[in-house]
Amino acid sequence: MYNILVGQSGGPTAVINASLYGVVQEAIENNKVDTVYGMVNGIEGFLKNRVINMSDYAKDHDISLLKTTPASFLGSCRFKLPENLEDAVYPAIMDKLKEYEIKAFFYIGGNDSMDTVSKLSRYAAKVGEDICFVGVPKTIDNDLIMTDHTPGFGSTAKYVAATVKEIVLDAGVYEHPVVTIVELMGRNAGWVTAASVLARTDYDRNPLLVILPESDFDVDTFVNDVKEALKQQSSVVVCVSEGISDKSGKFICEYGADAGVDNFGHKMLTGCGKVLEGIIKERIGCKCRSIEINLPQRCSAILASQTDIKEAEGAGRHGVQAALSSQTGIMITFERAEGDYAISYGTEDVNKICNREKKFPAEWITAHGTDIADAFLNYVTPLIQGESPVPFENGMPKYLKPAYKEII
Amino acid sequence: MYNILVGQSGGPTAVINASLYGVVQEAIENNKVDTVYGMVNGIEGFLKNRVINMSDYAKDHDISLLKTTPASFLGSCRFKLPENLEDAVYPAIMDKLKEYEIKAFFYIGGNDSMDTVSKLSRYAAKVGEDICFVGVPKTIDNDLIMTDHTPGFGSTAKYVAATVKEIVLDAGVYEHPVVTIVELMGRNAGWVTAASVLARTDYDRNPLLVILPESDFDVDTFVNDVKEALKQQSSVVVCVSEGISDKSGKFICEYGADAGVDNFGHKMLTGCGKVLEGIIKERIGCKCRSIEINLPQRCSAILASQTDIKEAEGAGRHGVQAALSSQTGIMITFERAEGDYAISYGTEDVNKICNREKKFPAEWITAHGTDIADAFLNYVTPLIQGESPVPFENGMPKYLKPAYKEII
Repeated sequence: MYNILVGQSGGPTAVINASLYGVVQEAIENNKVDTVYGMVNGIEGFLKNRVINMSDYAKDHDISLLKTTPASFLGSCRFKLPENLEDAVYPAIMDKLKEYEIKAFFYIGGNDSMDTVSKLSRYAAKVGEDICFVGVPKTIDNDLIMTDHTPGFGSTAKYVAATVKEIVLDAGVYEHPVVTIVELMGRNAGWVTAASVLARTDYDRNPLLVILPESDFDVDTFVNDVKEALKQQSSVVVCVSEGISDKSGKFICEYGADAGVDNFGHKMLTGCGKVLEGIIKERIGCKCRSIEINLPQRCSAILASQTDIKEAEGAGRHGVQAALSSQTGIMITFERAEGDYAISYGTEDVNKICNREKKFPAEWITAHGTDIADAFLNYVTPLIQGESPVPFENGMPKYLKPAYKEII
Repeated sequence: MYNILVGQSGGPTAVINASLYGVVQEAIENNKVDTVYGMVNGIEGFLKNRVINMSDYAKDHDISLLKTTPASFLGSCRFKLPENLEDAVYPAIMDKLKEYEIKAFFYIGGNDSMDTVSKLSRYAAKVGEDICFVGVPKTIDNDLIMTDHTPGFGSTAKYVAATVKEIVLDAGVYEHPVVTIVELMGRNAGWVTAASVLARTDYDRNPLLVILPESDFDVDTFVNDVKEALKQQSSVVVCVSEGISDKSGKFICEYGADAGVDNFGHKMLTGCGKVLEGIIKERIGCKCRSIEINLPQRCSAILASQTDIKEAEGAGRHGVQAALSSQTGIMITFERAEGDYAISYGTEDVNKICNREKKFPAEWITAHGTDIADAFLNYVTPLIQGESPVPFENGMPKYLKPAYKEII
């Protein structure tokens, strides 16, 4: 028997299910694979026998809907395997894999998930088990190294760009000065926030200021930059990453933390957008509102990029092909061709990738940390091409019922 | 000469430009109208000669793009005319109207805009000027009386429903208990928040709790309701209106206001969602996050309802027809037919409509203020039907350049 097991881990994205579709469909099309199992709620659920037979599922359901269904169909977990490979959890997992006659294991996720792939592949090598462990990249943060970009980023970039474009239109309708702060995801890396520059048009250069966590944030400089921007346009939109910090390393969102106790004594944490809103109101005195885009930027299927969907599926398919040629301890990577946009799939040693992160390049940060170089536009524009054909039913998007609701 | 003047006022919506298209296109198609002028930044801009010749504009531009372009193409203002009709602003406006040989005036907006239509029509009658003043309704809040619903509401309802559906999927991927608070627009009326029930599916009843400003909010009852909901599902999504208040009339968002000073002494205001997040973390201790949907719920063209777009256009067209038959001091209304969904356009005395608001019906609020009756589903479902054909170019939605950027 050659069965395979696939799971999803970490935060959801708009296209993590397209990678799942790629793994499942490639395996179904390949007659070497007997049964595809899905672990429900990742490795944590697998240890509790939360497993769905995806081969059977695919007979009764139109699994192509996975390509347009957001969030994690299989459910997720945040479960870090112990550093010590002598820990009892490793033989427990290995026994479970043997019980299901698993020959290849696929984990779709980000940094932490690649850490799981690394550890399991090392443990298997250590105990001489002939099972392939393959990581399929997924993260809106685009912060995995050794790959041109990650599945999930293109869709978030498209969502952020389109949403900021709408906010720019909305914020611009009045004649009076107004500052709008848009807080976007990115604790350590500014890729998502940088994508907001795609919202610019030839008649509106908003967002006029784009601030990433890779720069040291300084309040006085910021206030000055906003004042200068207000001389250019009465409506100024500022896009900032949630994780911006000052040169001492203190997060700007922590500037408000001490104050965060309400009338009942409950602690209230706000994002950096709210902090900057307070600063603008106090120091400049004009109208200011902050908008935290929050979860929708990672889970919106409606604005997923068709390019991202295709590449996410391709990553899953390539993962199966790699395992069938006996590769293990690897992650699927994207390599971009010179000239017209095209990517080819590759593999890299997962041990070199996990627990590291790819920052936004310093040379693409311009205007003392408030703007982004055109080179980034060339990089990101191909990733947002094409719209997702989400089916609608009775006025609402139609998504697949998640597996974690199927097996309850 | 029979010229007409059209303006937009108040907050933008996804379909306010569809009503503008209706006014302009109906006038162009009707050979009684000579020239259509648009006031840029509403009545305030008009007084400063900020005017665009829409008849000329339509010759050089594809104005059908107005139907899919969000926010206010003409710009907006928040300008309340004085109660005293003896004020000097009235003859100033009247002179300006005569200068442009205006015979009909159209104002697309909500409550405050209808107040403007009311005052101008009363002033014109008083001084014996033969100009028709017509209000075209627009508000995502759905709070205008004497009309079945308002243009703008259907698109916001669709956006809220689809976005909450995606949030429900995203929030449900982990096994561990989590509460997600979604804060939606609605200071006094709960229509927008109520639309979140459209996100429910046969396999996930989230949002399990839906709380409107029409109910008195009580913290202890809320904590208890969330605890009960957590017994049903490990992921509980709660949708609340920004304007919820307790029985003393104090807004829940004010519960956090005293605390709102950051390290620099800047005042920080948070929404009720953040306050409820703090309460859940403190009193229940489970994972909790709050999401304020903010501007995108009113300005997103991507999830606009095709039904809403058509009706918004129809309201504009009907406004022109009403003025051409010499009606004045009116607002266009929607009347719903019995049986299969259909609306007919009517007119009502704008003086009876302005400065009043239509609350969410008490009989549609169930489960001691935490759920919505099925009768509302029957009411709202027809309003979200059909998707907007937003054109995309190079991966991004293509919108019309706003008039306020044209005439700078």
